[in-house]
Amino acid sequence: MTQTRRRILIVGGVAGGASCAARARRLCEKCDIVIFDRGPHVSFANCGLPYFVGEVIKKEEKLLVANPALFNDRFNIEVHTETEVLSIDAEQKTILVRDLNTSQERTESYDALVLSPGARAIRPPLPGIDLPGIHVLRNIPDSHRIRAALSKAKSAVIVGGGFIGLEMAENLSRRGLQLSLIEKSPQVMPPLDSEMAVPVADRLRAEGVDLRLGIGVTAFAEADNGGVRVSLDNGDSIDTDIVILAIGVQPETRLAVSAGIELGDRAGIKVDASMRTSVAGIWAVGDAVEVNDVITGELQPIPLAGPANRQGRIAASSIIGGHQDLTFRGVQATAVCGVFGLIVASTGASEKSLKRCGQKDYEKIYLHPGSHVSYFPGATPIHLKLLFSTTDGRILGAQAIGENGIARRIDTLSMAIQMGATVYDLEESELCYAPQFGAAKDPVNFAGMIAANHLRGDLPLAHWEDVEHCEANIVDVRTAGEYAQRHLPGSVNIPLEELRERLTDISPDREVWLICEVGQRAYYATRLLMQNNYQVRVLSGGMKTWDFFSRTGGSLQ
Amino acid sequence: MTQTRRRILIVGGVAGGASCAARARRLCEKCDIVIFDRGPHVSFANCGLPYFVGEVIKKEEKLLVANPALFNDRFNIEVHTETEVLSIDAEQKTILVRDLNTSQERTESYDALVLSPGARAIRPPLPGIDLPGIHVLRNIPDSHRIRAALSKAKSAVIVGGGFIGLEMAENLSRRGLQLSLIEKSPQVMPPLDSEMAVPVADRLRAEGVDLRLGIGVTAFAEADNGGVRVSLDNGDSIDTDIVILAIGVQPETRLAVSAGIELGDRAGIKVDASMRTSVAGIWAVGDAVEVNDVITGELQPIPLAGPANRQGRIAASSIIGGHQDLTFRGVQATAVCGVFGLIVASTGASEKSLKRCGQKDYEKIYLHPGSHVSYFPGATPIHLKLLFSTTDGRILGAQAIGENGIARRIDTLSMAIQMGATVYDLEESELCYAPQFGAAKDPVNFAGMIAANHLRGDLPLAHWEDVEHCEANIVDVRTAGEYAQRHLPGSVNIPLEELRERLTDISPDREVWLICEVGQRAYYATRLLMQNNYQVRVLSGGMKTWDFFSRTGGSLQ
Repeated sequence: MTQTRRRILIVGGVAGGASCAARARRLCEKCDIVIFDRGPHVSFANCGLPYFVGEVIKKEEKLLVANPALFNDRFNIEVHTETEVLSIDAEQKTILVRDLNTSQERTESYDALVLSPGARAIRPPLPGIDLPGIHVLRNIPDSHRIRAALSKAKSAVIVGGGFIGLEMAENLSRRGLQLSLIEKSPQVMPPLDSEMAVPVADRLRAEGVDLRLGIGVTAFAEADNGGVRVSLDNGDSIDTDIVILAIGVQPETRLAVSAGIELGDRAGIKVDASMRTSVAGIWAVGDAVEVNDVITGELQPIPLAGPANRQGRIAASSIIGGHQDLTFRGVQATAVCGVFGLIVASTGASEKSLKRCGQKDYEKIYLHPGSHVSYFPGATPIHLKLLFSTTDGRILGAQAIGENGIARRIDTLSMAIQMGATVYDLEESELCYAPQFGAAKDPVNFAGMIAANHLRGDLPLAHWEDVEHCEANIVDVRTAGEYAQRHLPGSVNIPLEELRERLTDISPDREVWLICEVGQRAYYATRLLMQNNYQVRVLSGGMKTWDFFSRTGGSLQ
Repeated sequence: MTQTRRRILIVGGVAGGASCAARARRLCEKCDIVIFDRGPHVSFANCGLPYFVGEVIKKEEKLLVANPALFNDRFNIEVHTETEVLSIDAEQKTILVRDLNTSQERTESYDALVLSPGARAIRPPLPGIDLPGIHVLRNIPDSHRIRAALSKAKSAVIVGGGFIGLEMAENLSRRGLQLSLIEKSPQVMPPLDSEMAVPVADRLRAEGVDLRLGIGVTAFAEADNGGVRVSLDNGDSIDTDIVILAIGVQPETRLAVSAGIELGDRAGIKVDASMRTSVAGIWAVGDAVEVNDVITGELQPIPLAGPANRQGRIAASSIIGGHQDLTFRGVQATAVCGVFGLIVASTGASEKSLKRCGQKDYEKIYLHPGSHVSYFPGATPIHLKLLFSTTDGRILGAQAIGENGIARRIDTLSMAIQMGATVYDLEESELCYAPQFGAAKDPVNFAGMIAANHLRGDLPLAHWEDVEHCEANIVDVRTAGEYAQRHLPGSVNIPLEELRERLTDISPDREVWLICEVGQRAYYATRLLMQNNYQVRVLSGGMKTWDFFSRTGGSLQ
């Protein structure tokens, strides 16, 4: 480790920048380390902002994970807040900064420069976009503006059904507002595949949110009551007290571009695995950089706090030297979101991202196990979708929704993906089990068993999106009572318990597609029929998955 | 897959046996499959029994995961309950069975025989061991006997502080009983290392359990009040209404031994990776067999439901053929237990199991992160111990205790161990994060970072058990206020924030051991001092770990 006195300047003091500064100090006691931030705070908890608006987090101080005094006292790191970095002279290795309070400008020199500028909320160029009732939520001042507006507001329109939009829906509902949520795509929660987003939409509506999917906003205007009139592309309009814009973020790259730093195709800063930019002496981390997806290889900016922190740590190690093994492996897109008691989490690729990348040799399964054994009170379903390679069984991605045990299963699967595990490994995983904490065959084991059964040829699969055009006999092996409650039109009911006696009821001339409630009885029926020389497939996830599929707005609608 | 008609007999219809039967049917529609069980039930939820006693699970039916009618109707599997298998003729491939209701005996022939006899509660040969007030809990009739006794009981003595003993303590407390728990070893929860069991003991005592560690029972006798007098090896005695014996189980091997089947050194049935015994045509699964520990290589019976289920599935696949890839990889000893709101889980090796096996090139770390970020309400500490190889960084084992998020972290670490992950992999793991669900640096990441920092030479470690005999200067870098509350005798207080200015207070001639509350500030201090040419170590886990160590009854007492 080099101990020459070096000067490390960091632009942006949240997540990646703050991590980088602290790590740099740990590796180099003698370096000068200086953080500049345009805003009034460094190292604040931006992920907590929706909950500060919702008054779950009561005090602003709670959001301040660290402050300039702590950086100075503990780490001997200089912090300049309300100080904007205006330009970079990469030749001279200097930056021009302006104190936003005094407007004084000065030049600072560096040996290493780290850009951690983050991303800014997208504000589309719509009529009325700058009306005072329209808010974004990216920092603490934003949250104060929204909190102030809430004192008089009775209603809100949230534009955007991603993570922030949904967290804001929960928190504004908590504050007693009447809510509309407008989302241009036909589903909420874009990282999920559309069928998996259906229970989230259900929950929003059950909680009284006026959810409008597949609808775009065309304009904002002042409403008669002094609020905002939101015009929609279907001709409707909504008068509301405040608007929350949550349609995503875009990398903050002005400074990088002005310094001649190369951007990627998706408008983020291009970096290597050590977080170096294209310009010598300059590193970049966090929401502003493009990173590779470990599954699909796609390069794109992904605004996640975990990777930003890792990147900060890696950049510091690269700058100081001596830790060559620390490089950024890419993002896996692991994420979790709570919305009205429902928990939604995912890791790795979605089916749509696999399709977008042209990956064809994958398969998917759906299952709906309980969060723990059914005989212990309080179990709730886990709706799980697993994507895996049909060539070698590698796990490609997973999505889970439910009220309990969601992050646990996605974390376990995230680790599996990171380590290159196959579905055969999931079969054998040994996971925590006691009646209140799981099952002897955990949902993760079940996912592995179903997928491995499929790959071994014991469980041919069919999917709901193919039902409409299929020419198979569709046999529902649930009880007559279950069948009477709801069933796929055109399906025939032969309860599993009667199947051995009623084989002659099923023509061996056509393929048989089997349905049950979640897929387990259909699997038993599959084994029975296959050994009687039928061509069989199981409709993965059974009627529970159909409940989702039939309401995606897709072909089954 | 062979489709000749074969006759598969299974002795014991719980967990492993039931799994084996159902799987055999799925693989072979034409086989005859017959289960024999000595008891009145098959496929019952033995892990739920303590909660049935505690009336958390209200109805007996809930415990019956499957019944003979379901096995017959759904799987065409014959079930004979209250039928004991008396002997095996492995030459003739027959067994002699007795109907316990009619006492009639008959011979049944097999092509494949699967032994799933389970384990029985150990009843040590103490005076009075057969008194009617002394109970074990292995099956549903046992639970009814205890429930009946509870109608008049006001107090209970639980003998044994393992999983069942602790679960019974919680459930009997729920029923309002005054409890004593007697454990011969100096700690509860034997799979944990002793320092990690301290918070469990604390919780038991806080809940009013009269916990007596390091005390053995010498005799039982009838008490004056009609209950049981429990005599202890320290001369004390306790009069109680009922006694629960929960000192462990031993493999049920009578039948196997009579058939000449080889046992292992630990008195369990010896099997290969396909669950074949030493006698052709006979397989064995579940609590009765010896399995290898995937970390230590030790062979021993391990009574866990997850592995039993996997073994049943593997034995069936081996019997039917065609699934040669399905073999048993051994056990990882992943387990979880809830006790009075505290959750305790572990996976892989403990420090004592590593020591027992003579493994020396391991290191350990302690950490105490929150279950989620501290700025979001409701976070509770996770006390985590991680064991890893010092030669290649492989994760060897983990133990975690807390009120939230415990199974999640141990499952993630279990998957990591299964896949041969190193601490460097944990540094990079991308896990679920939103404020109410974790942290941008999850406890699993932190564990990896601390261990990797150590292996890279950036964080030399010391441990509390070595403090007594160390000759280092011990410096506590917490605030003066924290130091005043409690500190290690002989330690000097230099708050982290003053350290840069007070370096001259520390002699460079002796090694410096650093303490803070959990280890983080001591790490910062370590980096600072190392770069000023001090020899430094961090006392892993800080004062929080000392709180545990100082009360293990070990040398620090």
